[in-house]
Amino acid sequence: MVMYVRILGSEKVCNRVDLIDVALGAKPADVVIQSGSLVNVHTSEIYNADIAIKGGRIVAVGDVAYTVGNKTKIINAEGKYLIPGLIDAHLHFYHSYIGLTEFAKAILLHGTTTYADGFYGPAVVSGRKAIEFLRQELLKTPLKCIFLVPVLGYSQCREYSLSPTPTGLTAEEMVDMTRWDDCLGLEEPSPLPVIEKEHAHVKAYESILRSGKVITGHAIDLWSGYSITAGRQLTAYLVMGSLTDHECVSVEEAVEKARLGMRILARMGPGWAENIPELVKAITKRHIDPRCFAFCTDALPPDALAAGVAMDECIRVAIREGIEPIQAVQMATLNVAELFRVDEEIGSITPGRIADILFITDLQKFKISMVMANGEIVVNDGKFVVKMDKPKYPEWMYKTVQLKRPVKPEDFEIKAPKEKKEVLVRVMYYPTNSIIITEKRMVLSVKDGYVKPNIEEDVIKVAMVDRFGRGNVGNAFIQGLGLRKGAFGTTVNATQQNIIVAGTNSYDMAFVVNKLAEIGGGMLVAADGKELAVLELPLFGLLSDQSLEIFVHKNRRLFQELLKLGWKRPSTNALDWLGPASGTTRFRISDLGLLDTESRRIVDVVLQ
Amino acid sequence: MVMYVRILGSEKVCNRVDLIDVALGAKPADVVIQSGSLVNVHTSEIYNADIAIKGGRIVAVGDVAYTVGNKTKIINAEGKYLIPGLIDAHLHFYHSYIGLTEFAKAILLHGTTTYADGFYGPAVVSGRKAIEFLRQELLKTPLKCIFLVPVLGYSQCREYSLSPTPTGLTAEEMVDMTRWDDCLGLEEPSPLPVIEKEHAHVKAYESILRSGKVITGHAIDLWSGYSITAGRQLTAYLVMGSLTDHECVSVEEAVEKARLGMRILARMGPGWAENIPELVKAITKRHIDPRCFAFCTDALPPDALAAGVAMDECIRVAIREGIEPIQAVQMATLNVAELFRVDEEIGSITPGRIADILFITDLQKFKISMVMANGEIVVNDGKFVVKMDKPKYPEWMYKTVQLKRPVKPEDFEIKAPKEKKEVLVRVMYYPTNSIIITEKRMVLSVKDGYVKPNIEEDVIKVAMVDRFGRGNVGNAFIQGLGLRKGAFGTTVNATQQNIIVAGTNSYDMAFVVNKLAEIGGGMLVAADGKELAVLELPLFGLLSDQSLEIFVHKNRRLFQELLKLGWKRPSTNALDWLGPASGTTRFRISDLGLLDTESRRIVDVVLQ
Repeated sequence: MVMYVRILGSEKVCNRVDLIDVALGAKPADVVIQSGSLVNVHTSEIYNADIAIKGGRIVAVGDVAYTVGNKTKIINAEGKYLIPGLIDAHLHFYHSYIGLTEFAKAILLHGTTTYADGFYGPAVVSGRKAIEFLRQELLKTPLKCIFLVPVLGYSQCREYSLSPTPTGLTAEEMVDMTRWDDCLGLEEPSPLPVIEKEHAHVKAYESILRSGKVITGHAIDLWSGYSITAGRQLTAYLVMGSLTDHECVSVEEAVEKARLGMRILARMGPGWAENIPELVKAITKRHIDPRCFAFCTDALPPDALAAGVAMDECIRVAIREGIEPIQAVQMATLNVAELFRVDEEIGSITPGRIADILFITDLQKFKISMVMANGEIVVNDGKFVVKMDKPKYPEWMYKTVQLKRPVKPEDFEIKAPKEKKEVLVRVMYYPTNSIIITEKRMVLSVKDGYVKPNIEEDVIKVAMVDRFGRGNVGNAFIQGLGLRKGAFGTTVNATQQNIIVAGTNSYDMAFVVNKLAEIGGGMLVAADGKELAVLELPLFGLLSDQSLEIFVHKNRRLFQELLKLGWKRPSTNALDWLGPASGTTRFRISDLGLLDTESRRIVDVVLQ
Repeated sequence: MVMYVRILGSEKVCNRVDLIDVALGAKPADVVIQSGSLVNVHTSEIYNADIAIKGGRIVAVGDVAYTVGNKTKIINAEGKYLIPGLIDAHLHFYHSYIGLTEFAKAILLHGTTTYADGFYGPAVVSGRKAIEFLRQELLKTPLKCIFLVPVLGYSQCREYSLSPTPTGLTAEEMVDMTRWDDCLGLEEPSPLPVIEKEHAHVKAYESILRSGKVITGHAIDLWSGYSITAGRQLTAYLVMGSLTDHECVSVEEAVEKARLGMRILARMGPGWAENIPELVKAITKRHIDPRCFAFCTDALPPDALAAGVAMDECIRVAIREGIEPIQAVQMATLNVAELFRVDEEIGSITPGRIADILFITDLQKFKISMVMANGEIVVNDGKFVVKMDKPKYPEWMYKTVQLKRPVKPEDFEIKAPKEKKEVLVRVMYYPTNSIIITEKRMVLSVKDGYVKPNIEEDVIKVAMVDRFGRGNVGNAFIQGLGLRKGAFGTTVNATQQNIIVAGTNSYDMAFVVNKLAEIGGGMLVAADGKELAVLELPLFGLLSDQSLEIFVHKNRRLFQELLKLGWKRPSTNALDWLGPASGTTRFRISDLGLLDTESRRIVDVVLQ
């Protein structure tokens, strides 16, 4: 029986007491890795050392010949650098739209043997039940997880007076999780409820602080370079004990936050937030102590994952930008383990730690030839070599998209005074090559008392539809998507996981929404009342139950169909970021209407 | 009400939520420190920054003018460097022989605002009751404590089959303490019981590991440079999760242990273990990453304390040996806070941390002009400026030296076959300028069936007398103390806290022991049946209830009297280290007789 578990998935390795006899030479090791060059992340040295492994943990490092017995498996690592398994400091698996088993395989291929996640997306949809299922699913893979309380599963932008999902986490469940042995902290609480002393947030903070666990931050736009108020809000967020930030975008921001005691999780969100080149200037140009830095990816779009980008890319980019390879490796291993206070378990190749070891052929180019997780080879020569059972997903995970009633085209109409021919409206303006949406005021024409989109100017309709059986539909206009025909909808959107649909006309919008409900969630594009492409995400309405390859294939088809309709965004997930969330974007679409995150009120789309 | 306490003594500062209004500018700060040069231990920079403080915690750093209100106290720090309060990573207050209140004052004078201790000496004598009293006593001082389970209070060299004190910690009490919120780890468990899987040690380790707390190590002589066995034992000790070592004496040892994932607590035990000059070569000459290093003092003899040596001296010595001042400061602050996983509470001058701040006039020479602890100035211009009540020590702390019956001279005789005129005996050999005792075999004469000391050759008698009412007396011979007359005894001795007495004759030895019992413990020197000097240590038989100054004065007198009798050791505490403990010294005096720590048996003093 395993005596304790702090890192989810470490159930797979043996107890520490079982290592003692091997360490003393009284019993043989299971595996010995010979002749490799050890990258020592503690001392910042590289030297030759052999490694003895027993029951998935490292027993001895250095001269370990005495641990070799008749049945000890020998692995020759000549010409290879040996580095600890990578630890992604902040990553939501659900943003890759695939099941956790499939996701585990995808990131293990890139050397990530442990990652930090709280499963907040599924928690928004199905609460604690989702979390418990995913925790069990993870145990059947070789991946490990630094499990954090998914605060967003509870908060769901309550600070904007929006209704949280009826099936999300309760305050009690959130606080209860802080006490689990294998919960290691809080996952990016939004600053506002913390600064405003929202009761459940304060309780969760105090419970976490009491047990010496870690509060990871989400300090988007929160620093004095942004505004005086933002600087003070950052300070208020910090005094509560928030210890990390993965939202820095400029070197100045990173330097300020590091000076204030935050660990900077430099992000390499492939294609959407590639912050590392800028942020490592703090080290290369500003000479900030590199111990303040660690790496994360935050969200790994399936295309990038399939194309071979994950935590390993963080190291490659950092080296390319002038960081010493050992330092880059530290930022992806020991620095992360230390900040989560699990460095006795993972993060270095030293006695007692879990045997997560990467075999690297070229340290400068960071080419991974083999991945060992929990003492077992899981990746060899770019191939995943472990058989994992296809998970059996239960029925309840498939039935999460519930409309109160099928929507009708009228649900997507915005009324204007009948006598008016045109009105001034607020339009969400989504500039090309940015995820930051601003407000534009434009004049739109009115017909039969309804405000009409202006397709010539790329002003179309956008709506959020409640999918938890409550019937709300919030409508607005948006510029920047490019659709010239039809409608496109998704059941995935950060903090609320409702349906977002954008379209040139109400008929196709209603069609898309009703169809998405019918299939239990996904992304769907339609025109003239006809489905053009669909990407099923039947698990929680968020995840595919197919392979990464199938997802990528279907996603490309969907993207092709979108392009045909005029789509201007670089990928299919552009709608995901229109819903309520904390961050720069002031205007967002909610199921109650257009949300102004500054005044925290639903504001009129039609101004006059 | 304080919402949580991890660091003992942090009850004094406010809750984090109370800081939010100040951070946001809605309420004023209590104190603002202006115009100082901040030494930022996170980023390794020095720059000008002001500091706002509220309720004993730091609220804001940088431009904090907005927090100044009418009643805000302004402290001008122009020309001063501001560094975090020092944290001693390993220090037993009881080795300074003074009460905790007096000790707090002494180390605060040297900038130590937090130190790690488990109160193991008092715990050996009076168990949990002692610990609880001391924890309460500490709360009445401005000092804070990283409280660790005093494993030695339970183990007491059980591995040598010696009887633990009847009043020490039980296994259940030890394991129970691991679960306290304000217990942050285990204090230096001896390697042998760990490696041998002693049940209570394994339970304590697992409970600590489960809760993410820290196991500080005590890996004395445990490394491959000492012997192959020692190297393997170190590995076995490491696989169990032991994370630090304060017992390194050579740079090679430190490098090996750092490579194996231990944090090296470089020790500056003034006058007895000044390891820093050697160990920092790992950084200056071997270029090991300085993050592996932190400082500690372990034991601060009162003379050194009174002469002005504590953690501050660690920094001075390190700088003198070529370490950059900022790095040296990191090793005494942030590195310690991080290793104990309390860096959200102490170790840097950043929002939310407790306001422990030193004002330094010269960073290179490290001269402290002012000490702030918990937001209050406690030391100004070398003077302690806070009034602390003299503690009321309860009766039970004074009555801990209990003989089963008064000892008689015969109790200190070692028998030899009557027909023999001389015998070969084992003699404990205590070389000058070393604390390592080896064995010497010598011929001694026999009279009336008793082996006689050889005062000419400096071979005198030594004994350990049980002081827990059980009546054991163990006898041996020792060379190297220098006494030519009389006897000297003490009730202080590391892991067992019995009475150790050394003398040229049994009469004086008996006199000393009986007298020590009468006064409730201390150090006492006598000759010809007459007391020559006494230093009372009435609390637990370990501590003075007087001031440091009185202790030092009396100790000097005692030392003078010892010198007159021929004493060759550099201080009065030479007997303290003769009793059972883990470490190099193979032969030790126990209450059952001469102990061979290698065979773990009581061995014959008389060989033939």
